[in-house]
Amino acid sequence: MMIATFSNARTTLACAHKGYTEGFNTAFRGGSVMGYALCSLGVFVLWVLLTFYRKVYPEADDWEILFDCAAGYGLGGSTVAMFGRVGGGIYTKAADVGADLVGKVVAGLDEDDPNNPATIADNVGDNVGDIAGMGADLFGSFAESTCAALVIAAAAVEGSNNTLSAAGWDAMLFPVAISAAGIVICILCGFFATNISPVKVEADIEKVLKIQMVLTAILMLPVIYYLAVLLLPEHFRLEGVRLTESGHQAKIHGSPFKAFICATMGCVGGLIIGLVTEYFTSHSFIPTRELASACKFGTAVNIIQGLALGYKSCIVPVFVLSSAIFVSFQLCDLYGIALAALGMLATLSCGLTIDGFGPISDNAGGIAEMALFNPEVRRRTDALDAAGNTTAAIGKGFAIGSAALVSLALYGAFVIRLRVKTGVNILEPTTFAFLIIGCMILVKFNGSQLGIYGRWGDGGRGAEVALQQVEWTDLKEQFSMKDSKGKTLLTGSTELKPDSKTCIQISTQASIREMVAPACLVILSPLAAGTFFGIQAVFGLLTGSLGSSVQLAISMSNSGGAWDNCKKFIKNGFSDDVELRYTKNPQTEEEKKAAPKAKEAHDAAVQGDTVGDPFKDTSGPALNIVMKLQAIVSLVFAAYFAAINHGHGLIQVQ
Amino acid sequence: MMIATFSNARTTLACAHKGYTEGFNTAFRGGSVMGYALCSLGVFVLWVLLTFYRKVYPEADDWEILFDCAAGYGLGGSTVAMFGRVGGGIYTKAADVGADLVGKVVAGLDEDDPNNPATIADNVGDNVGDIAGMGADLFGSFAESTCAALVIAAAAVEGSNNTLSAAGWDAMLFPVAISAAGIVICILCGFFATNISPVKVEADIEKVLKIQMVLTAILMLPVIYYLAVLLLPEHFRLEGVRLTESGHQAKIHGSPFKAFICATMGCVGGLIIGLVTEYFTSHSFIPTRELASACKFGTAVNIIQGLALGYKSCIVPVFVLSSAIFVSFQLCDLYGIALAALGMLATLSCGLTIDGFGPISDNAGGIAEMALFNPEVRRRTDALDAAGNTTAAIGKGFAIGSAALVSLALYGAFVIRLRVKTGVNILEPTTFAFLIIGCMILVKFNGSQLGIYGRWGDGGRGAEVALQQVEWTDLKEQFSMKDSKGKTLLTGSTELKPDSKTCIQISTQASIREMVAPACLVILSPLAAGTFFGIQAVFGLLTGSLGSSVQLAISMSNSGGAWDNCKKFIKNGFSDDVELRYTKNPQTEEEKKAAPKAKEAHDAAVQGDTVGDPFKDTSGPALNIVMKLQAIVSLVFAAYFAAINHGHGLIQVQ
Repeated sequence: MMIATFSNARTTLACAHKGYTEGFNTAFRGGSVMGYALCSLGVFVLWVLLTFYRKVYPEADDWEILFDCAAGYGLGGSTVAMFGRVGGGIYTKAADVGADLVGKVVAGLDEDDPNNPATIADNVGDNVGDIAGMGADLFGSFAESTCAALVIAAAAVEGSNNTLSAAGWDAMLFPVAISAAGIVICILCGFFATNISPVKVEADIEKVLKIQMVLTAILMLPVIYYLAVLLLPEHFRLEGVRLTESGHQAKIHGSPFKAFICATMGCVGGLIIGLVTEYFTSHSFIPTRELASACKFGTAVNIIQGLALGYKSCIVPVFVLSSAIFVSFQLCDLYGIALAALGMLATLSCGLTIDGFGPISDNAGGIAEMALFNPEVRRRTDALDAAGNTTAAIGKGFAIGSAALVSLALYGAFVIRLRVKTGVNILEPTTFAFLIIGCMILVKFNGSQLGIYGRWGDGGRGAEVALQQVEWTDLKEQFSMKDSKGKTLLTGSTELKPDSKTCIQISTQASIREMVAPACLVILSPLAAGTFFGIQAVFGLLTGSLGSSVQLAISMSNSGGAWDNCKKFIKNGFSDDVELRYTKNPQTEEEKKAAPKAKEAHDAAVQGDTVGDPFKDTSGPALNIVMKLQAIVSLVFAAYFAAINHGHGLIQVQ
Repeated sequence: MMIATFSNARTTLACAHKGYTEGFNTAFRGGSVMGYALCSLGVFVLWVLLTFYRKVYPEADDWEILFDCAAGYGLGGSTVAMFGRVGGGIYTKAADVGADLVGKVVAGLDEDDPNNPATIADNVGDNVGDIAGMGADLFGSFAESTCAALVIAAAAVEGSNNTLSAAGWDAMLFPVAISAAGIVICILCGFFATNISPVKVEADIEKVLKIQMVLTAILMLPVIYYLAVLLLPEHFRLEGVRLTESGHQAKIHGSPFKAFICATMGCVGGLIIGLVTEYFTSHSFIPTRELASACKFGTAVNIIQGLALGYKSCIVPVFVLSSAIFVSFQLCDLYGIALAALGMLATLSCGLTIDGFGPISDNAGGIAEMALFNPEVRRRTDALDAAGNTTAAIGKGFAIGSAALVSLALYGAFVIRLRVKTGVNILEPTTFAFLIIGCMILVKFNGSQLGIYGRWGDGGRGAEVALQQVEWTDLKEQFSMKDSKGKTLLTGSTELKPDSKTCIQISTQASIREMVAPACLVILSPLAAGTFFGIQAVFGLLTGSLGSSVQLAISMSNSGGAWDNCKKFIKNGFSDDVELRYTKNPQTEEEKKAAPKAKEAHDAAVQGDTVGDPFKDTSGPALNIVMKLQAIVSLVFAAYFAAINHGHGLIQVQ
């Protein structure tokens, strides 16, 4: 996928020569291709898997086992996402630090200088997390929410044949149909953006991208309604987890209209969360501009205000999420939650298009720089990149929101799969003890992610900063090497080439090495809890990790995003306040007078951005994956948990 | 209490003239008096209240109502604590910023210069949060855990007379007896510290304080066992919240030995949490020293590593807490949790003594500076202060740990008081939706606290930074005012006095003004949730706030503490690494060479400390109070919730 980014970037660059319309269209199409490919592949493979398993388990009574097998698909998706996101984040950081150490510090090179052996690794790194990581993350969400919906739908309801599985295979596949329809809608809307109403001037770029998001979401709604009426029976019963007042299982009755409302809650909710994320992180709006003003008072104030901004940005998304949970849970119990997640992810290909758009344009810019193109081309790619960055924030909001819903749906599927009829009583010794431990694991994961960044990590690894510097030091020597004509890399040697390969190797090794411990922690913790302390421990763990990760993920991503844009706001001189307009060569008297203050504010903003890097690139987005991964691991191992605990009095199984 | 600090500080100062022994003893006694006074008053007033109410409700059947009334006592304690802690934190910050703006920036005065009108406010401010806030916080915990234990003990158990209330008033008062005995033990141990084995040299100070903590905890254990055997019946039944496998209420049987184990879990657990807190925040240990090394790489790395340190420091405390919860919950259900909280708080007067010790010595130092004493005296008070600061970390750990247990006990008392027989099913639409909202409220509270610090807060208040500066500006004019002889404050005027009163006024107003919104948010949220969405919403809210606040409170307090000590470590030149030894006047060649690097590291550490200030002084410790306050508000209004929801099908009441 990264290779695709690069080849697309090259085309985009070529087209950017011709103006905004062509440049936008190529970058957009490049992003679309990735989005459609990913989504289509996801839906298709799932469909093939299900069709295959159906041959093995043709009876409706066995479908629960069938979907159990399919849950492994989701687990695979999320595990890859974990590596893509977390590993990608670490890769980015290692490459970034390396490029600075080798190029800027040692040889005084500019960013993206082709003579810096770490430039390519740095450029690739910018996209590993954003493209491969984000794609795998959202793909995992899609696969998992579908599995959760299927497992819940297939669960046997006592004393009634009026279930979804009784209504036949088509009714079961309603969740898959939503995702398939989403792809078609996104293709139609994409056609609209590139051909019907193309971008003419710079100012249009962001608008067109945003219209895409809103348009696809709106067009999805009637389609979902049509599918619901077409595929679902008029009334159906579901297995649920809610209890009646007397403590017995409540009876859940579904209908196509209820299912439609659940999916709508997700679809519209995702859009709102995305727009709120943009509001808090884009420098076109008040919060980030106020953060920029805080930079005037120094680094510490910037850091504190950035953290406060992140915390504050949780309010609306949490209310949106909890409304979606409340309504869809009330209407269709946990099946409703799964549908809400699918509704939010229905416009996934559009989201991925926009996500891919930014990095493609960014890389086009990098290539333009390295290939010493006309500055006008770089200006065009920068404009495309800026718009892409802004709208990418919307994608992040979607990712976090859907992850929360998916995790809850998986958690529910797990409870249903275990045939727990008495609800999950949080006030049990094991459950409550593990609720706190669940929160802690999240926090511990987060701590290791941050620790990795500065090499301090887990006790006694302080020396690693130095170590990594040594690794890069070998590369620094390249600059003093001389070829047969006595020329060095920097004085125009034609024989020597910068050793980009080693840089990529170091970054890749660093990212894989650092991944192991946190990944094990996340994947093994539900297994260990369930094996040694019973299923109630898993319930506690999932509740804790779900509850605390939503806030952490939103606040960290948004703090990081805001710091990043705050720096850009000051660095690019967008501010009306001359003290926040940083320029290397001040022109007017006023600017010259304000220059030292502007420099101070800029420095504070740079420090904030550095703190924000692991927030938005590794820790924050990785939390999405952690909560999903813990839930899907639990679901996949549900049968195992039931087997080892049955008869030991640890779980409430009938 | 603040006045007491000052008068004690004066005596301490006088005694510090005579050497460490006298200085230590006076500061220690000063702290003790506060600790004993607070605890004795707490126990006494509670006893008077209970005795009075017993006249009104003499029958054992009515005791539940009796203890309901007493719960108001706990609510009062926590509300005061909220104002003390949060208000105190804001006060400190306002005074601190003020002192800097007025004195250092404008007139170039040193810290604690008597000519700075803000010095007194600054000195007072240092103690408002630590003394008044911490005292009220722990007092609230003590009152609330006692109330929770009483409410649970008095709850009627069906089909059995073998309850605590049936065993009589003495059995009911076992929790109060633990607290009362704790005071006596602490007095004995205090006598040991000041008279039997007094401090002789500087190095002894910290050791003696730590031995106090351990000694009181160890001596408490046999006393608790004796009290349990003496007061509790051999077997008793309790009302609980655990369910059997079939979903019915489990029967809980208690015994004196079980009760003893529960209290022991708390008592020993508190000690461990305290020592871990010290390990992570004291610059005598690896974590803070590694943090200091991170300062070499600049502010951003310091900030990230400090955050990672805080996250990492949660691991052991959370395991200790969850073990305490698991064991005591298993043994005596929620009564056990309340006993664990009381066990942790049994050595409260000792904790408060040590908490008071630091600020008393600190103020003694301040007075010595202002009164232009012999530098040797200042050196002695500094040594006392340093030891007090280190051991104060232990107190913070206690405060957070006990707050978590108290909140859970209160939550349980609330559930029991509502006669919910079917457990708290977390997988209900309302409950789960409010679980996330509960986490969010905590985070929002935290965000406002941080926002207050830099005046960015809630939308559009950006101008307040400027505003506050204007307020302080009036004070700056003092320095240019001339008296009848044409002299200013700084050139030795005898007529003019620095306007300390206005400074104190500004700080007080700021702290009270900023308190209102967050306090309302915390107190009103359970009421609003319960009134409009039913009791399940309150359950969700309490679960969410309890789960997420433990981690946030521990990590924020410890990050803040570590940054503070990291700064001291570099500033005071304790490091073996010459690049981390900051001195204004470098002496040796080596020091002169390393001076610019040491300055950079020092600057990074100062920024970290500034970020850490609101972490450790307002946000972090305030979270303790928030979780307790939400739980006690719910408990106090339990009868109201039951009344408005009964018959509406919203709660599971039999």
